[in-house]
Amino acid sequence: MNDADLNDADLTLAPDRVDLPEVAPMHDPALAVRVQHAIDHKTKPLGALGQLEALALQLALIQGRDLPQLVQPQMVVFAADHGLTARGISAYPADVTAQMVLNFLAGGAAVSVLARQHGLALTVVDAGVRQDFEPHPQLRRCKVAPGTADASQARAMSLSQVAQAIAVGRDVIASLPGNAVLLGEMGIGNTSASAMLVARLTGLPIETCTGRGTGLDDAALVRKTAVLAEVLARHADAVEPLAALAAFGGLEIAALVGAVLEAAAQRRVIVVDGYIVGAAVLVAQRLRPAVLPRCVFAHRSQEPGHRLLLEHLGVRPLIDLDLRLGEGSGAALAWPLLESACRFLAEMASFESAGVSGPAP
Amino acid sequence: MNDADLNDADLTLAPDRVDLPEVAPMHDPALAVRVQHAIDHKTKPLGALGQLEALALQLALIQGRDLPQLVQPQMVVFAADHGLTARGISAYPADVTAQMVLNFLAGGAAVSVLARQHGLALTVVDAGVRQDFEPHPQLRRCKVAPGTADASQARAMSLSQVAQAIAVGRDVIASLPGNAVLLGEMGIGNTSASAMLVARLTGLPIETCTGRGTGLDDAALVRKTAVLAEVLARHADAVEPLAALAAFGGLEIAALVGAVLEAAAQRRVIVVDGYIVGAAVLVAQRLRPAVLPRCVFAHRSQEPGHRLLLEHLGVRPLIDLDLRLGEGSGAALAWPLLESACRFLAEMASFESAGVSGPAP
Repeated sequence: MNDADLNDADLTLAPDRVDLPEVAPMHDPALAVRVQHAIDHKTKPLGALGQLEALALQLALIQGRDLPQLVQPQMVVFAADHGLTARGISAYPADVTAQMVLNFLAGGAAVSVLARQHGLALTVVDAGVRQDFEPHPQLRRCKVAPGTADASQARAMSLSQVAQAIAVGRDVIASLPGNAVLLGEMGIGNTSASAMLVARLTGLPIETCTGRGTGLDDAALVRKTAVLAEVLARHADAVEPLAALAAFGGLEIAALVGAVLEAAAQRRVIVVDGYIVGAAVLVAQRLRPAVLPRCVFAHRSQEPGHRLLLEHLGVRPLIDLDLRLGEGSGAALAWPLLESACRFLAEMASFESAGVSGPAP
Repeated sequence: MNDADLNDADLTLAPDRVDLPEVAPMHDPALAVRVQHAIDHKTKPLGALGQLEALALQLALIQGRDLPQLVQPQMVVFAADHGLTARGISAYPADVTAQMVLNFLAGGAAVSVLARQHGLALTVVDAGVRQDFEPHPQLRRCKVAPGTADASQARAMSLSQVAQAIAVGRDVIASLPGNAVLLGEMGIGNTSASAMLVARLTGLPIETCTGRGTGLDDAALVRKTAVLAEVLARHADAVEPLAALAAFGGLEIAALVGAVLEAAAQRRVIVVDGYIVGAAVLVAQRLRPAVLPRCVFAHRSQEPGHRLLLEHLGVRPLIDLDLRLGEGSGAALAWPLLESACRFLAEMASFESAGVSGPAP
């Protein structure tokens, strides 16, 4: 796929002109019945492991196995810069995107620490950071452009860039081993892009989708919201998922869309971090609805729009610790719960095998 | 301490006549300032790790160290039977207490599986199960009595039994290595005892403190609530913490009170499981208020009284997965979050060390 293949003016045709994998619906009623039966006969009151039981069933259905197993889990952090930072929508300077990429690779960021704790392989993907990086074994240098354009002046990305970034995400996932991916991101300004994507694709008012990001004060939050309203108005015609992605950015979000689609197509378990990865899932779900049941939503963040997005998708996250860091940190923190879900299914005794009485008649 | 030392009729004197350790208040403002400064200078927006930051500070203050470390964590499950089960207040027969003790030891229960996952040593304490057990390396046979008396007919325990059970909890903790304990329980009927303890010590109406336990239906829940109201009325004079404990039981809850007090006195980190362990913490906190900041509340269970208890104590649990299993399963599920809190404090880079810019001016 190259620029010449895509007519940027004809964005409504985008889904047919960007290379997207098919994602089969999860549909195996016999497996679901078997797994639920196994869960219900473990030595515990019916339903007593709560959300962990639903998670175990989901993992079994994703993998198409009675006993799901998590093999070589991959934490993948997509990074890129946002032209809209010129409008002062973030508390931190845009340089921090590149600085944090180096921090991830040096092992000093939250996601580095948590990935180490849980034995998650960590890969960082430069999908569009302004700065160039030296080679590093954990870094994929797949820069589509040195950041997006300022979405208040033009579309953040051309449709060709969208297609390239989606391909980056797909290729990275396809190249990694294992059957589970944890998705994270870094990009100063990307809560803004996410807020606009969520507002546009769900119809929620931008005021409710906009939060403090890395730490704006009240006045700066009012300014951020006004800028986002202006950008939304400028791109009023960007209503289809890929058109909205092109209009608002960013390159890391487009790469995440590709990662979600490819991982879903390969029946990998997808662990979704916070607001930005959630926005990418929203885009991916509009393109291929069957991705949603393959996603495990790790946590509910402090960004107010994230709660609304989770409600809109009709999903319940595993943890709620008022995180607002991104990087994949929430996905990493929730990871042991996925392992617990697999283990209780595989290792707990049944009433029969343990000689434990059932409920009194 | 033996029966002759205690005058059961004079329960208001109980706190002076039961051997309770002193628990020093946590007070080290200089340490708190240093740790908060370290947290605030990690490479993340201020406060972005949310509740994990508060947890890291709490662990540092419990241990009196800038960099808390969790060493040889011990999962301890206290088990006992309840005479009140004769009144049909549980969905499961009382035999299940003993059957589940054997299941814990055989490695097939939820807490066995989760303890294995997280490298937690597992000890089961028979504080008052009706059935006797063969020796087992993970079992402490410290039976105070073969279950409590039926609290609708008499006090569940004599004050001497309360004192003995508290001593059991203290001795078990004192004998275990490490600096962190995760507390769990098993006892058919013990949500009833917990509901009555919480109602009596907090003043909350018994209707709001009573839930379905292991799975009562609507009609059985109404009957359970009526029985508990009757038992509360019968022991209207049992208002002091140890008097209430004696009136309502159970032996495992009294042992948990001792475990909480001893662990707090030794500055161990105490990970509190669900409603029953929470009720034991409530009793312990009334006896020694300084225990509370040494407790990490692992989760919020589906038992409606548990939410009220956590609110009453003014504490926020780490996870909320609609669990209602007990055993210590919620404590085990939350355990990796404590490790994460220690690790981010020890291993994350600071803005200065990583060369990352702070917020824009």
